[in-house]
Amino acid sequence: MKTVKGGICAAKGFTASGIHCGIRHNKIKKDLALIYSEVPASAAAVYTTNLVKGAPLTVTENHLKNGIAQAVICNSGNANTCNANGIEIAEETCSLLSAELGVRADDIVVASTGVIGQKMDIEPFKKGIPPLVKALSADGCGDAAEGIMTTDTIKKEIAVEFTVGGKVCKIGGIAKGSGMIHPNMATMLVFITTDANISPEMLQKALSTDIQSTFNMLSIDGDTSTNDMVSVLANGLAGNEKIVSEGDDFNEFMKALNSVTVTLCRMIAADGEGATKLLECSVSGAKTLKDAKTVAKSVVCSSLLKAAMFGADANWGRVLCAVGYSGADVDVNKIDVKFKSAAGEVAVCKNGAGIDFSEETAKKVLTETEIDIIIDLNDGDFASKAWGCDLTYDYVKINGDYRT
Amino acid sequence: MKTVKGGICAAKGFTASGIHCGIRHNKIKKDLALIYSEVPASAAAVYTTNLVKGAPLTVTENHLKNGIAQAVICNSGNANTCNANGIEIAEETCSLLSAELGVRADDIVVASTGVIGQKMDIEPFKKGIPPLVKALSADGCGDAAEGIMTTDTIKKEIAVEFTVGGKVCKIGGIAKGSGMIHPNMATMLVFITTDANISPEMLQKALSTDIQSTFNMLSIDGDTSTNDMVSVLANGLAGNEKIVSEGDDFNEFMKALNSVTVTLCRMIAADGEGATKLLECSVSGAKTLKDAKTVAKSVVCSSLLKAAMFGADANWGRVLCAVGYSGADVDVNKIDVKFKSAAGEVAVCKNGAGIDFSEETAKKVLTETEIDIIIDLNDGDFASKAWGCDLTYDYVKINGDYRT
Repeated sequence: MKTVKGGICAAKGFTASGIHCGIRHNKIKKDLALIYSEVPASAAAVYTTNLVKGAPLTVTENHLKNGIAQAVICNSGNANTCNANGIEIAEETCSLLSAELGVRADDIVVASTGVIGQKMDIEPFKKGIPPLVKALSADGCGDAAEGIMTTDTIKKEIAVEFTVGGKVCKIGGIAKGSGMIHPNMATMLVFITTDANISPEMLQKALSTDIQSTFNMLSIDGDTSTNDMVSVLANGLAGNEKIVSEGDDFNEFMKALNSVTVTLCRMIAADGEGATKLLECSVSGAKTLKDAKTVAKSVVCSSLLKAAMFGADANWGRVLCAVGYSGADVDVNKIDVKFKSAAGEVAVCKNGAGIDFSEETAKKVLTETEIDIIIDLNDGDFASKAWGCDLTYDYVKINGDYRT
Repeated sequence: MKTVKGGICAAKGFTASGIHCGIRHNKIKKDLALIYSEVPASAAAVYTTNLVKGAPLTVTENHLKNGIAQAVICNSGNANTCNANGIEIAEETCSLLSAELGVRADDIVVASTGVIGQKMDIEPFKKGIPPLVKALSADGCGDAAEGIMTTDTIKKEIAVEFTVGGKVCKIGGIAKGSGMIHPNMATMLVFITTDANISPEMLQKALSTDIQSTFNMLSIDGDTSTNDMVSVLANGLAGNEKIVSEGDDFNEFMKALNSVTVTLCRMIAADGEGATKLLECSVSGAKTLKDAKTVAKSVVCSSLLKAAMFGADANWGRVLCAVGYSGADVDVNKIDVKFKSAAGEVAVCKNGAGIDFSEETAKKVLTETEIDIIIDLNDGDFASKAWGCDLTYDYVKINGDYRT
């Protein structure tokens, strides 16, 4: 497996575009993105578990009942959530795109991101869809990735090449997500494309399995968004024998999917609202997988630890505190904790109690931009990772006045 | 019932003191507090559910097995948690105080608050306990309240007078707590004294019931501390007929206890680390009490909403978002939301969708220092309140470098 260029356009038969159509007031920012497969593709998606759900998710869920899709349209600037006419707007968007692109309306994945509860108008879509379709290109991944950004500061794209049954396949994805990130069964908006040949059922199985250890282990601020969705389109143009059951081919596909999703997770965490640091918490020695995951996620969610990491303060007591209240079954007298980064490693806690360490070394380790918090529970064989970011002045600034 | 002066010394037979003994480096700050009842008192306590527990809590739990206590000693500056010799230090503290004060060592409630995982030395206690005992006074509540403060910026004390069976009783409390506040079954350090005559069993029942709707509905930052404890000493000197079962007298006592605990909750929330605003979320119309509580707590815990409140931004979509992911059983299409403060009231959401409102009025309402977030779920008869605070630059500042 190797990383390749092109993001969502790396896989055969996919093109993409992104434009400004007027949903955002800021005319420099793109606000509408399109992904198109030249043939109908197997499609799978997972959605937020928030009871308050964006209208586009309901429409997409309907469209994906048959496991087939051919295009994805997504706007930023307005989440189309808690709107009286949300469903209507999402459906009309699909009708407009269907007419312009010549694909079935129910083969379209529709998504929105932005402010919740703002009235939404169909006019920008009417005006924007024709030039959006015209702009479709094999170089369009960057534009589409920009079109779905909100408070993101960097574009998030990745693609890898892998082999299934002797055929070279590609899989790539784009993501948006910076705040309101604490996915549950799904995550922020992530769109993945692949030319691997795989049935809708196995594609859904791959995605639903993968997110348990990737997007569901990511948290920026503990707030599960109303509009989270991850979707994958697999158009089969790589020509591999169709994956219709578990086995070597499915495992190869899972590995490739996982390398895309883990990369996107890390990109989202590193670009968390106001973040200056990516935090990765690696837990080992847990009694069960659930305990490992519970501990890892609890640690990256602790506001106190996140603030300490911002200040490069080796306040490991906050790690222990977050382990203790996580709800996981742990023996607190067995816990070891280390901090690690490009600058080195420092052990701070052994058997649940503090050990002498150099504050100078710790400061150096924690001043880097990627920090690993390594926890050994010494109580079993299960391990897990979670991703998050530090809590900074800028998080408060960005969210103190988001709407204006 | 009326508010009276004196805090924990308001009730008959209670004295208190607070001094600097050298646990903290900052000599201006008091770091040791004592509360004393001239007769043994019924005693009840609730403790953190964090698996990582401060050593003093274990010692206190042992001492309160017989439901009797006569003194409370608490230090700040070091949490005596994740220390190899924590239990030893806590027990030796009680021995030293027992000798000096002439009370049984196992009639002492011992508590600590401060940094986790720092080595602790008995010397400051040896030096400090004699002058601490000497300083005991009926005017000592303020000094004791200062002795337990960490990042708190204001002393938290309250007392009320009430009548049980024709006898005037008093109940008062002090609290510390500003960060690492998301109590679960207990809260930050809270010490309550009363001269009401009540059996240990009924006292425990009163406390365990009360905290469900008070301290357990409070959150500053979602981090459940390792050292949370609420304890009540009831010395019976008011002379009322002993409360040994439920009934009118017990209800009167519960009301008085509740007025003390709610006041302390609001004080803790308003003095949350870096906070500029007290948030009170009032939920009504829930299907069950559990749903009401789940919704109220989810809203005051949302980092995004907390940041919006700091910025006086009426971003009600974040209220809906937090309701939606709370896990409560709600019908999102029935939810109404209002913001209210001393400056007025503004309705922002009706039946789950946005309504037109004046941004100017909203700004005025949200610029006050006490904000009510009023949610009607319109789906049942249950109601609940939760308390929290805004998320500010100063929270990050305080916690980015707490240890130094």
